[in-house]
Amino acid sequence: MHEAELQMKSDLLEKAERTLHGIVRHTPILHSSLADGLFFKAENLQLTGSFKVRPAYNQMAALSSQERRRGIVTSSSGNFAQGAAFAAGRLGASIKIVMMRSCNPLKVERTRKLGGEVVFCPDRFEARRETVARIARDEGRTVVHPYDHPLAVAGNGTIAREILGQVPEVEHIAVPISGGGLIGGIAWAAKLQKPSMKIWGVQPSGSNATFLSFRSGQRQAIERAETIADGLKVTQPGEITFPLIQRYVDEIVTVGEDTILKAVGDLLWEEHLVVEPSGAVTLAAVQEGKIPVEKTVCVLSGGNIAPEVLRRVSGK
Amino acid sequence: MHEAELQMKSDLLEKAERTLHGIVRHTPILHSSLADGLFFKAENLQLTGSFKVRPAYNQMAALSSQERRRGIVTSSSGNFAQGAAFAAGRLGASIKIVMMRSCNPLKVERTRKLGGEVVFCPDRFEARRETVARIARDEGRTVVHPYDHPLAVAGNGTIAREILGQVPEVEHIAVPISGGGLIGGIAWAAKLQKPSMKIWGVQPSGSNATFLSFRSGQRQAIERAETIADGLKVTQPGEITFPLIQRYVDEIVTVGEDTILKAVGDLLWEEHLVVEPSGAVTLAAVQEGKIPVEKTVCVLSGGNIAPEVLRRVSGK
Repeated sequence: MHEAELQMKSDLLEKAERTLHGIVRHTPILHSSLADGLFFKAENLQLTGSFKVRPAYNQMAALSSQERRRGIVTSSSGNFAQGAAFAAGRLGASIKIVMMRSCNPLKVERTRKLGGEVVFCPDRFEARRETVARIARDEGRTVVHPYDHPLAVAGNGTIAREILGQVPEVEHIAVPISGGGLIGGIAWAAKLQKPSMKIWGVQPSGSNATFLSFRSGQRQAIERAETIADGLKVTQPGEITFPLIQRYVDEIVTVGEDTILKAVGDLLWEEHLVVEPSGAVTLAAVQEGKIPVEKTVCVLSGGNIAPEVLRRVSGK
Repeated sequence: MHEAELQMKSDLLEKAERTLHGIVRHTPILHSSLADGLFFKAENLQLTGSFKVRPAYNQMAALSSQERRRGIVTSSSGNFAQGAAFAAGRLGASIKIVMMRSCNPLKVERTRKLGGEVVFCPDRFEARRETVARIARDEGRTVVHPYDHPLAVAGNGTIAREILGQVPEVEHIAVPISGGGLIGGIAWAAKLQKPSMKIWGVQPSGSNATFLSFRSGQRQAIERAETIADGLKVTQPGEITFPLIQRYVDEIVTVGEDTILKAVGDLLWEEHLVVEPSGAVTLAAVQEGKIPVEKTVCVLSGGNIAPEVLRRVSGK
């Protein structure tokens, strides 16, 4: 990479930090009770219950006042919806969020509570994209992408900066992969500051598009994404995020559904944290022995668990 | 209070800080999503899932090597048991813990896992005291009290020091009351450093011995303590802790069982924290309008929730 390019990117990251300062929470790093040397970055304790408020606000803060007046349209499986509704509210913009009918009802309810208008679409990514495009065209709204945008990536990169400030000695960061915005941002920002850092991506084995793409060296789509981790159901990595993953991520692993549920239960009972399956895949990968335990930070990306999942792990 | 006395006490507190440094966790202060200006001191994220490791370790670290060799005996409703088992383990001492038959089975299981030997007694405080005394006499073990000891109080005082370092601007601290060791330590340490601080104690209305004693100006016992907050079932404030409460606590309020359960549910769903009923009474008091919301820290004293309580609040 050229020096100038690096510099530009570093500016993007520092700008994101300034933009998000005082808006989002500097979430705590917690020592794990499950293993020595293991840490959690508790983004489940972030505003709106997930890290998504970072990429949402960082993108929307860059819109012109005219764009904000015309309103925003976006799509989400649920956590970006909440982050986006919160961000739009803070910036005084109206927002429509396209969600699939099958998504976690609690996430829909919370999105509405935060002032977001939810528009349902059929359970296909193509249908979701089309609905977003139609609303943008018909209503003149600006499209904000849940992950595939440099400002989304930079917003997520602020998490790596916080981690390195909190536990400079860590050597590994484990990150859930959905569209790739979270890991893309974290991997890029972490290596900018500490090139020796190892970045591990985690996908559910039933939603492994990025895992397959990473192995084959090119963006691949899968037919269907099936997993209890409802926030990680994406059938293809992003156009912007995948090259970042290829460049900065060291390894991608997959985890099974039972291990994900076990990790959710362990976080609840042993760590006293409510973490949704999508956020718990990182611990699941450590528990499956696929990621080192020592000097490792598992990013717990969100806490918006569905009541039926909570009930499944509440039978201690 | 005389200057010399203050000085002595301040030494006790600083010594506790040094003793606990590197042993217990410096738990995070979290902003509440429920109300602006409201904070949580998350002792549910403490080692062993409650603050009790502080008073336990601070007392046991002061024992002679001969006393440690002969072993320790104590009693607990469950959280002190775990803190004490952990502390004894760290110090290489054997420990017997007398617990009532009706106590939270999860707390028993965890105490055993931490190396504590549990001895059951009938469900009466008198029986518990007698069992402890008998074991101490027969086996030459040193009695460690769960709360009524200056070193227990000083260990708890370290929480106030952390709070004032983390959010110096706070004006109110809300603290659950069981035997009075937690609030006694926090009130004393907080006022030593910031005399204008207001300290609020909270008891369940079904376990209100300290509330009644505070009102009447003398230590009173109640017949029975009945509440879902199993860690706060104490029928009389401590001999050492009650004078501290009279001197340093500004107000004591009581909360109902329904509000306690609602607070547990709100902490779970809105804050993504697992907090047991005993730890959630402080938020319950704020939600009942009995404690100011602004610039208030609610101490969440523990997270060792019983599975049946978790199930009751899992039906979002």
